[in-house]
Amino acid sequence: MGTQANYAGGKLIAVDWGTSRLRAWLVDGGGAAIAEADSDQGIGALSGGHEAVFEALVADWPKVPAIMAGMVGSRQGWREAAYVPCPATPAALAASFFRFSTGGGRPMAIVPGLVFHAAWRDGDVIRGEETQMIGMIDREPAFAGTVIMPGTHSKWVRIDRGTIVDFQTFITGELFALLSEKSFLRHSVAGGGGDLVASPDFGLAIERTTGEALPFLASLFSVRTRQLLGNVSREHNLAYLSGLVIGGEIAAARDLGALGPGTAIRIIGSRSLARAYANALEVAGFDAEALDGSELVLDGLTHLARTIGFLEKAA
Amino acid sequence: MGTQANYAGGKLIAVDWGTSRLRAWLVDGGGAAIAEADSDQGIGALSGGHEAVFEALVADWPKVPAIMAGMVGSRQGWREAAYVPCPATPAALAASFFRFSTGGGRPMAIVPGLVFHAAWRDGDVIRGEETQMIGMIDREPAFAGTVIMPGTHSKWVRIDRGTIVDFQTFITGELFALLSEKSFLRHSVAGGGGDLVASPDFGLAIERTTGEALPFLASLFSVRTRQLLGNVSREHNLAYLSGLVIGGEIAAARDLGALGPGTAIRIIGSRSLARAYANALEVAGFDAEALDGSELVLDGLTHLARTIGFLEKAA
Repeated sequence: MGTQANYAGGKLIAVDWGTSRLRAWLVDGGGAAIAEADSDQGIGALSGGHEAVFEALVADWPKVPAIMAGMVGSRQGWREAAYVPCPATPAALAASFFRFSTGGGRPMAIVPGLVFHAAWRDGDVIRGEETQMIGMIDREPAFAGTVIMPGTHSKWVRIDRGTIVDFQTFITGELFALLSEKSFLRHSVAGGGGDLVASPDFGLAIERTTGEALPFLASLFSVRTRQLLGNVSREHNLAYLSGLVIGGEIAAARDLGALGPGTAIRIIGSRSLARAYANALEVAGFDAEALDGSELVLDGLTHLARTIGFLEKAA
Repeated sequence: MGTQANYAGGKLIAVDWGTSRLRAWLVDGGGAAIAEADSDQGIGALSGGHEAVFEALVADWPKVPAIMAGMVGSRQGWREAAYVPCPATPAALAASFFRFSTGGGRPMAIVPGLVFHAAWRDGDVIRGEETQMIGMIDREPAFAGTVIMPGTHSKWVRIDRGTIVDFQTFITGELFALLSEKSFLRHSVAGGGGDLVASPDFGLAIERTTGEALPFLASLFSVRTRQLLGNVSREHNLAYLSGLVIGGEIAAARDLGALGPGTAIRIIGSRSLARAYANALEVAGFDAEALDGSELVLDGLTHLARTIGFLEKAA
């Protein structure tokens, strides 16, 4: 109990509540995290009972307002928050928060998601990553370019000096898992792990899909024939398959106008994924800079908390 | 036993032995099938014992030579037959047959597969479909154009007056099964069945992927958002997803030069798949004619049997 005194300066609880994890930070008046808590009770594991789960996690902390982002605001979450249309500013997001009070009287706010309606396809949505975008804009207000958030469902977001212009989702990580683990190609690739980027076959696949215009759908069967005819090892073949899906994603994003000569690029993601994408982009002729995603979530949440009065404006 | 007398005219056994099925025809001197037998003992279900399985199936037929095509000639089959490089003619295939005799002294011949080495990717292979190609060439010796064999692994084969020029494999059917049954999109599409082509969303997806240049990889997430934002039914969404993978395949084949203005197109496949592809190609601006695949296998086998002396030349 000796540490409880440290919580006294807490003014806000910032929450990142996604499908598989719940993370909370106790934040002081200056926006610094003074305590952290997390659990595996993600939205995907719950069917109701959100308030009890949340209050149990932060029971030792002061009864201050909480701001939340992620799947907690989806139809399957605690309360459904809106989708704000792009182009969108941090102010537009702040104006569409879902506000409520818990049974215990704690003021709550859920960050809305983003929706983008393109002429050439149906709408695309973001829920969760918008908060990292806000954190990124808070740090680099003059940034104009493309932000890539690789993962199970990669997001490519175009930003222009504080405005989230548009975005595109690619299901790259999921597709790679399906192809390498569930398709007939699983017999031709290693079981996973290892440093895929270190294999020259990763770069070869990137070069073919981005430089030589090999269509992604025309590239997949060759993962099998490389083993059948060329005796390529399963480890190198896994790297090749990884390069095909990431290279296919980069080529498609380029076709959509998210990449061009001189486009400024930031990558937000885990160290290994960020490295793979930076390497792939380099092969494709683009420079990219990697940022730490977990820090940006907290930055975004505290920035947004200030705009809705949950935290005092920064001095 | 009254029917055994009918087998007396049998001069050749023609065999299509694939991964999941074994089919055999007893053929008379004129190339006509006078009896047929099949079993579910495909190559994928066996580890050795091929001769016993085959002899049991044809035990009632005369002890005549047998010609076989399909996975029976793969590394996992009875005996491994070669891959003949493209461009290839029926005569080149006939020169590379794998010939042997069974323990019981029956002359056997296995049709070789095809391999194509493109500059821009690793080699591609065909094993089984080459025999339908030979049957098709036998019927239309002057044909010059593209033959599409849709399925789990679709083959696009370019033919020029009797020569198999090159080909490309797309794993379209497998990708559709993975996406509709194993990915997160399974929650947004119907469980299968139904007349997918009848939905206007099938044509919409074809139009977007082939006409409006929506990259395949950029199209998949919208299957989810169509349901989330647009309340599209799961049945129509399954048709849309089917249109995306088939349209993506057509767009990639076009990029590779397998389709162009005025290209003659034949589709060899099941009635429903052939109809879907013919419909998709029409939306994309191409005319195609559907052929019956099972007849072509037998035509190809009898044509090749004549070239190696297993059957007398046609009058």
